[in-house]
Amino acid sequence: MAHGRNPCSPDSAFPLTPTTDDGIDEKAFVGLFDRLAAAEVDSITALGSTGCYPYFDRDERARVARLAVEHAGGIPVIVGIGCMRTREVLRLAEDAQRAGASAVLLPPMSFHPLTADEVFGLYEDVTAELSVPLVVYDNPGTTRFTFTDELHARIAELPNIASIKIPGVPATPDEAEARIAHLRAVLPSSVTLGVSVDPLAATGLITGCDAWNSVLAGTVPEPAVAITRAAQAGDSASATAESERLQPLWDLLTRHGSLRVVSAIAEVLGLVGHPTLPRPLHGLSSDERADVVEVVERLALH
Amino acid sequence: MAHGRNPCSPDSAFPLTPTTDDGIDEKAFVGLFDRLAAAEVDSITALGSTGCYPYFDRDERARVARLAVEHAGGIPVIVGIGCMRTREVLRLAEDAQRAGASAVLLPPMSFHPLTADEVFGLYEDVTAELSVPLVVYDNPGTTRFTFTDELHARIAELPNIASIKIPGVPATPDEAEARIAHLRAVLPSSVTLGVSVDPLAATGLITGCDAWNSVLAGTVPEPAVAITRAAQAGDSASATAESERLQPLWDLLTRHGSLRVVSAIAEVLGLVGHPTLPRPLHGLSSDERADVVEVVERLALH
Repeated sequence: MAHGRNPCSPDSAFPLTPTTDDGIDEKAFVGLFDRLAAAEVDSITALGSTGCYPYFDRDERARVARLAVEHAGGIPVIVGIGCMRTREVLRLAEDAQRAGASAVLLPPMSFHPLTADEVFGLYEDVTAELSVPLVVYDNPGTTRFTFTDELHARIAELPNIASIKIPGVPATPDEAEARIAHLRAVLPSSVTLGVSVDPLAATGLITGCDAWNSVLAGTVPEPAVAITRAAQAGDSASATAESERLQPLWDLLTRHGSLRVVSAIAEVLGLVGHPTLPRPLHGLSSDERADVVEVVERLALH
Repeated sequence: MAHGRNPCSPDSAFPLTPTTDDGIDEKAFVGLFDRLAAAEVDSITALGSTGCYPYFDRDERARVARLAVEHAGGIPVIVGIGCMRTREVLRLAEDAQRAGASAVLLPPMSFHPLTADEVFGLYEDVTAELSVPLVVYDNPGTTRFTFTDELHARIAELPNIASIKIPGVPATPDEAEARIAHLRAVLPSSVTLGVSVDPLAATGLITGCDAWNSVLAGTVPEPAVAITRAAQAGDSASATAESERLQPLWDLLTRHGSLRVVSAIAEVLGLVGHPTLPRPLHGLSSDERADVVEVVERLALH
């Protein structure tokens, strides 16, 4: 596992943005950041998908960025600036930089499906105005845009492109290694790769990703940090064993989606109120929550 | 073709929301409304998908709603209130009603994929606060949410549900008729059905839809009104013939997406400036525009 000097390596925790009826639950938000600082994650990404970035307005997002930097205990903070319109993305980038973000994370949100040239244009417009590194957020499950490797390569040549948050890697180590090697071959060596999809993170880190963009780490950082540290030390066996121990949790994430499961865990652990997701999102049903409680206890998540 | 007393019947024109670098091109927007009023469309829907609703902020959307009602020449105006978060949808509904909208149009925008219960909850929350009719906007191509007939039936029982804007109908008349009959059987008779997907509109109107939610009518109203009037008069042959005449246009819509083609037509006709779409959206390439120019001339669109 190699990684560059880059705020996006090697373990980036993606916390929730807890809400109340009226707005952001700032006390709970700050509490999550205190936990992450204490667990010594390598970076924290506010307003990623888990942080529900499209559900908040500009003022709320600026406030979240300021709180995040203030309560990260010196750990680099990356701020998500995804938005439907380029004009708004530029405003959010300005707000994030003013708040002291070490980097920004940009997904190509789409409504009318975007062409490759339009997505390139978005990154071109934004990096031209930016003075901090940018992480390309490749998350087709929420943005509904699918990058080609060719487009990643074009975007990676733009100034300030630091990293790509890729959606996952193939589940078998050989295929994962081939995938990462293929992607690296078309990218400048300065651009790091971060794996998402928590159940695939150990495989991704072992087979050549520089970072893990972790939903789990944003709420329950210890096991995520343990996997990352083992992979960093070249101890693939320990990284894999810890990931395998968490299989019942990975099964829940796969079944219900990571946001709903992680927000239920945060509720069960008393880190956020209930409900904590912005409507129209609902939490899990009470049966589904009971499964979460069982897994939290069995795996001693805390 | 039957239709109820409902602001959403039988021909609803979906105009663009032309933009400039700075904001909304109000002069062009008002010009489009003057055209639609002169063509005597039955209703006008501002801020539908063609009106690019998710690209504008609350103030812009309130302004669009006011301008729309002011310049519709007494024709009922429906205003799109789609937004990621229920709280914002409620605010947009308030603004639309204050502007004098005759109805509102609500798509279930999604980011984290929504469950059926969450979508029902959205319509429940919004209709509880509403004093004008609501059109359910079933548009999976942009919202990425797919309704089941069962969910349509549940939502149709809520107060103020006036109509469902369905994405399309099967291309063959027999299958279209069966599809419409099946949907009607599960819905209250007060709820009308509006077909979208312009190339399928004549088939939809002939086989039992009450309305056509028309992208074409928002920019080039005459042929759309002609098809609708023929279908209303029971003259299926004329409706079909006019739709078949427009086949070169339908081919372009299918190939490039209706928004890009219709905005190019509006540019070619001098109704809007260039570019008129909000970034990151680009217009068509110059080759693609040349195809549009050719079709506009061949079909004598004006």
